[in-house]
Amino acid sequence: MNQNNHLVIMAGGIGSRFWPMSSEERPKQFLDILGCGRTLIQLTLERFAPIVPMENVWVVTGEQYATLTREQLPDVPQENILLEPCRRNTAPCICYVSWKIKKRNPQANIVVTPADHLVTDTDGFRQAIEEAMEFTAETDAIVTLGIKPSRPETGYGYIKADLAYSSSRKKNIYRVDAFKEKPDAATAAQYVSEPNYLWNAGIFVWSVSTIINAFRVYQAKMSNGFEKLLKTLDTPQETDAINKLYATCDNISVDYAIMERAEEVFVRPADVGWSDLGTWGSLQAQSQRDEHGNALIGNNIAVYDTTNCIVHTTENRRVVVQGLDGYIVAEKDGILMICRLSEEQRIKLFH
Amino acid sequence: MNQNNHLVIMAGGIGSRFWPMSSEERPKQFLDILGCGRTLIQLTLERFAPIVPMENVWVVTGEQYATLTREQLPDVPQENILLEPCRRNTAPCICYVSWKIKKRNPQANIVVTPADHLVTDTDGFRQAIEEAMEFTAETDAIVTLGIKPSRPETGYGYIKADLAYSSSRKKNIYRVDAFKEKPDAATAAQYVSEPNYLWNAGIFVWSVSTIINAFRVYQAKMSNGFEKLLKTLDTPQETDAINKLYATCDNISVDYAIMERAEEVFVRPADVGWSDLGTWGSLQAQSQRDEHGNALIGNNIAVYDTTNCIVHTTENRRVVVQGLDGYIVAEKDGILMICRLSEEQRIKLFH
Repeated sequence: MNQNNHLVIMAGGIGSRFWPMSSEERPKQFLDILGCGRTLIQLTLERFAPIVPMENVWVVTGEQYATLTREQLPDVPQENILLEPCRRNTAPCICYVSWKIKKRNPQANIVVTPADHLVTDTDGFRQAIEEAMEFTAETDAIVTLGIKPSRPETGYGYIKADLAYSSSRKKNIYRVDAFKEKPDAATAAQYVSEPNYLWNAGIFVWSVSTIINAFRVYQAKMSNGFEKLLKTLDTPQETDAINKLYATCDNISVDYAIMERAEEVFVRPADVGWSDLGTWGSLQAQSQRDEHGNALIGNNIAVYDTTNCIVHTTENRRVVVQGLDGYIVAEKDGILMICRLSEEQRIKLFH
Repeated sequence: MNQNNHLVIMAGGIGSRFWPMSSEERPKQFLDILGCGRTLIQLTLERFAPIVPMENVWVVTGEQYATLTREQLPDVPQENILLEPCRRNTAPCICYVSWKIKKRNPQANIVVTPADHLVTDTDGFRQAIEEAMEFTAETDAIVTLGIKPSRPETGYGYIKADLAYSSSRKKNIYRVDAFKEKPDAATAAQYVSEPNYLWNAGIFVWSVSTIINAFRVYQAKMSNGFEKLLKTLDTPQETDAINKLYATCDNISVDYAIMERAEEVFVRPADVGWSDLGTWGSLQAQSQRDEHGNALIGNNIAVYDTTNCIVHTTENRRVVVQGLDGYIVAEKDGILMICRLSEEQRIKLFH
């Protein structure tokens, strides 16, 4: 295992779409949403454990999730759990942790991942990440993971790859032509029909020097802010200093702040059973289903004349469902929600 | 109030059709199934309280429901709560309590009612019962309450009244031509189209001497069994003696044992908003509904795009329902059931 490999798990999301299973008190990444005995953040750490030393694992999350993170990831060093005082999207998060990592190891090579995604082909996934890390260890490239689309999804950004231009060092790594915002349905259908459009999964690989340089060039103010705190980092004054600085940071994604502006951006296509589990529908699609297409997450669920439903309940709670087609039935902490899968975008209006 | 008036509440049912709200541990009569703050057995007692002295109220129930009965009906004298050791339908129940009443007051005049029915026009109901009791106080008639049918129900027995032959003493009380078993749909439609067919609500009025005589004639063995225990009744030996006798009694309804055989049988037609609340559908029909036909029983239920549903949950539990039409959603004690109203006869298979 390369001792320069670092992992950054971004765990600041509040998972409002999975209500009532998720809540601001316990968002999706801290839930065993698949009913497999492990939470999504635990699955995320497991996925990278063979290729990143545990002392190089970093988690950036909201300060209200400090206890949950420590409980669920007891092997991650406490000092590697960075707490954000407020939500500022992914750019400040990555800038902060990158300066922390640079201070500890200027040769670090980093993979950044959301905490709440699912990958079913973990071997293929790790192979893709390792290839990307080997590449960024030797170059000043920024590499994104590009997921082979399986449907004309309008909820994701797309990466347009230049498949004619693969890296001379890594044949599976291609130059990025452009990042495309979430498309409309017709555009998404067009993208899916072409081999060079890939989903942007928000999983990035770069050396610490590359990403710090990119911040210096494209987000000079933000980068300077954190650089000025370099001496304060890893001291008792760090929290106060970060809290003050964070409040002044732009609320901006790393995609917009860096990726869409940088020059040496590459993509590693991957077909690894990835899902962002961003919707109940995607959770249903990724869960084990019975012969009638029902995903039943819970230990005591009985269904009759029921098809294409997802039933999600806390352990051992008894649920009997008759005669539903295409519904979400979710029950937790004294709250029961029943909603058509096709109407799940309205869930945020329910709580 | 006539001091000879007695009330018998039959409360032995196990309410299996209202699962999961009702259970063998707490059947329907002991539940606030309407969400009005009173259980059905409490509503039943209230309905009769103006016409029967409290010391003349009797409850016959299963021995496992003794505590529930005492808790819910604290004003009913403890010695008037008779406990059945096993379920033997209504004939042994009525025979037992009739001998108990006869021993206390040979002039008693009795109304017998199930514990778990609903009446919305309580004034009209009491007027009908009082007329019937005035009639049975002066005659040896057996009177049944006959509910004016509102639909071609196939789940009830019917009473065919001879509307040309009203009693000379009470113009609203008619001789019964015949009792009709639960009809098929075509027969039920025929019944509803004729003015002289009424639902048999299982509510009976008779003097204690009349019903004891009827048991002596039509159920001699059963009647003898209880008569032999006459000296034992109201002694510490009563429970043991009754337990032994009950096990030997036929499992038979009073309709079949007495009503269909007796001679002087009359009916008092009544249109008093009666329901046996025998199904979720009837509960929905009797509950307050919103403008979309939803009966929402619970304090924190929100519905969207939802019509003709009944949602029943324990107090303050939060429920959100989107996009259902014609369903039961019932949740209690860690059990959630969702079922089409049209399929509710299958509920007994679910538990």
